Amino acid sequence: MSGPFRIGLLGHGTVGAAFAELLHARAPHIEALTGRRPELSGVLTRSRGDADDILGASDLVVELMGGVDPTRELVLRALRAGTHVVTANKQLLSRHGAELFAAAAEHGAQLRFEAAVGGVVPAIRVLSETLAAAHVERVHGIVNGTTNFILTRMAETGEPYAGALAEAQRLGYAEADPSEDVNGADAAAKMAILARLAFGTPVTLDQVPFQGIEQLTADDIQYARDFGLSLKLIGTAERVDGGISVRVHPAFLYAGHPLASINGPFNAVTIESPAITEITLSGPGAGGPQTASAVLGDVVSVMCAPAAAVASGGALTGEPLPVIADVASAFYLHLEVADEPGVLGEIAQVLGLQGVSVKSFVQKGLGPHARLVMVLHPVLESKLRVALDLIAGLPFVRARPRAIAVIDEEF
Amino acid sequence: MSGPFRIGLLGHGTVGAAFAELLHARAPHIEALTGRRPELSGVLTRSRGDADDILGASDLVVELMGGVDPTRELVLRALRAGTHVVTANKQLLSRHGAELFAAAAEHGAQLRFEAAVGGVVPAIRVLSETLAAAHVERVHGIVNGTTNFILTRMAETGEPYAGALAEAQRLGYAEADPSEDVNGADAAAKMAILARLAFGTPVTLDQVPFQGIEQLTADDIQYARDFGLSLKLIGTAERVDGGISVRVHPAFLYAGHPLASINGPFNAVTIESPAITEITLSGPGAGGPQTASAVLGDVVSVMCAPAAAVASGGALTGEPLPVIADVASAFYLHLEVADEPGVLGEIAQVLGLQGVSVKSFVQKGLGPHARLVMVLHPVLESKLRVALDLIAGLPFVRARPRAIAVIDEEF
Repeated sequence: MSGPFRIGLLGHGTVGAAFAELLHARAPHIEALTGRRPELSGVLTRSRGDADDILGASDLVVELMGGVDPTRELVLRALRAGTHVVTANKQLLSRHGAELFAAAAEHGAQLRFEAAVGGVVPAIRVLSETLAAAHVERVHGIVNGTTNFILTRMAETGEPYAGALAEAQRLGYAEADPSEDVNGADAAAKMAILARLAFGTPVTLDQVPFQGIEQLTADDIQYARDFGLSLKLIGTAERVDGGISVRVHPAFLYAGHPLASINGPFNAVTIESPAITEITLSGPGAGGPQTASAVLGDVVSVMCAPAAAVASGGALTGEPLPVIADVASAFYLHLEVADEPGVLGEIAQVLGLQGVSVKSFVQKGLGPHARLVMVLHPVLESKLRVALDLIAGLPFVRARPRAIAVIDEEF
Repeated sequence: MSGPFRIGLLGHGTVGAAFAELLHARAPHIEALTGRRPELSGVLTRSRGDADDILGASDLVVELMGGVDPTRELVLRALRAGTHVVTANKQLLSRHGAELFAAAAEHGAQLRFEAAVGGVVPAIRVLSETLAAAHVERVHGIVNGTTNFILTRMAETGEPYAGALAEAQRLGYAEADPSEDVNGADAAAKMAILARLAFGTPVTLDQVPFQGIEQLTADDIQYARDFGLSLKLIGTAERVDGGISVRVHPAFLYAGHPLASINGPFNAVTIESPAITEITLSGPGAGGPQTASAVLGDVVSVMCAPAAAVASGGALTGEPLPVIADVASAFYLHLEVADEPGVLGEIAQVLGLQGVSVKSFVQKGLGPHARLVMVLHPVLESKLRVALDLIAGLPFVRARPRAIAVIDEEF
């Protein structure tokens, strides 16, 4: 337990550089805490460094290269040599988690990944340590700061999606190519990782259906305010009859929900468990220094407890749970109709035949330009889809109905 | 690493019984996670069990007796025998923390105490692990659910303090004797524990000035709404020039503050650090099952990493920091005055002579029953006190001025 603690750094982009700087600044403090001085044993980039040399000279590898190739191979080699790994790579974990966790367990290495999910929000640690013994019922997350900024902006200014996205890009909250953020794929990878931890069952990215925010209109956000609702891109991982459901889609939240007040480029995760009711964690979405700080927290944890068993977060408990695709949810429904006698009755009848009942509704506008905005009681998504197809075919309905999930008020 | 993991339970009240039940229910899951089955090796209550037998037969002791005597002695004996301790006892830690942490470090035992602070909010783990390497600048906490329920009730209904307290008692959120909660002492003990962790410096309960909520009026809460402020009992631990300040008092928060939306019997902690900006953790205040769940999380952590060094949270880094008593804050100020020409000018002059400047103000009512409600720019508390004494002596001031801290908008 003497001599420096040697850290190999794979990748030296924004986050890698921020990590190297933070490590240098905090090294004396970390030595006071742990008894060992952390130091960089080498840095691998596309143009410099030798992977073999660095892996061979490190007690721990920090992987900040991103991507799957050649990252997967390098991380596997480190773990198989018994070298601990800290990574921020959500793609790698959500696609190849099972293989990586198995390698870590087999070779007595830790694999830590707080920085892969939720910016500075310590969701991984709370799920894998604080709640290691708890029965987790549900996780709700706002795990993409870009989309939360855009939706907050649309709600506050009434601006359309395109304008709010441009503003996010101007402020550096969205990339030049924002696709992975705004289409929900980034959030889906993070939810796959959280679901694995929450339920101790394997979940991969391809099991997580996702839907983005590109189709949302400022109108819907305004109308829904009348019902006390605010719109977020929500990741859900929950137990349902006979299995689990993991998904990402825009959803309305009632004002009392702990995630309803999370505005701007923030992330937040709410974890529900019978024994504790709920815990909510929130903070800014990932920037370079934030991600570097989360990585450093993981590094210090490895230095403190190099032999920790569960800390890898890879332990699966019991039989794998099936992933269920069709789940029940309440919905907001927006219909453009010609305002004729009997319209509401006919719509209610179509909904009723599919077992969908209306909780509340308002009519906006009159005559040919009327809109019906309603909140529906929970219904299986498949049944709602059938009802929407039928409604779309009614002669007085002027546009494809828009439906957005509503997270239950009874939360 | 085989055979059961033996847990001695000291105390079998509400929390103790909930812990025993939860441990029994989750034992198979914990065995799957850690490889060892946890089991109770004995229970000590006032009427049954032998302390020596239980300490001798345990790998870990869970202390849920409360109080300082004989708890301190029992915990010290356990630690000196190298037996790990998990406790929910904030009084013990905030009064005798230094002695207990020293004993733990000397004998290679862990001392964990997540349940001592903040209900289900994992503030201890986040400070001592996630942020172990971070430079923490400030911690703000709503760490007493009883007072947060009462203040929320006063704000929502306009009810006076006494009525809101009675409602809290009826719902089980306040004890028959609520003194320790409503006078701020409970929150002060928790803030002493958080401050030690945040700054790696010894802080004891007697260094934490506290002020309760008994004197607050629904009027002040209503008036402050005009400024966009909401009232909470806030614990603060922060770095100030040359040292730290730890204190508990009612404070107004601007709407954008992450703690402003924490309502009802909830706890929340916001931790600020340059690298991460901030993390906020929130959840229900402590009940039996919630506290038991936090204790069990600590037990599982010990089982996973029996040799963890920092996890005890006792490590001090560097020279002890002095505790500073007089710190600057913005203030809300409420004055009952006779509305005569020149009144506002004279008050502004008295304030100005002490270096206090007014940020915004409104007048309520007219003639002899006028009230001036204002928000002041940050000022040293000692200077404000001098100004208030002078203002109280002005002939047109009809009652003692009321001042309540305002947490900076610039947060």
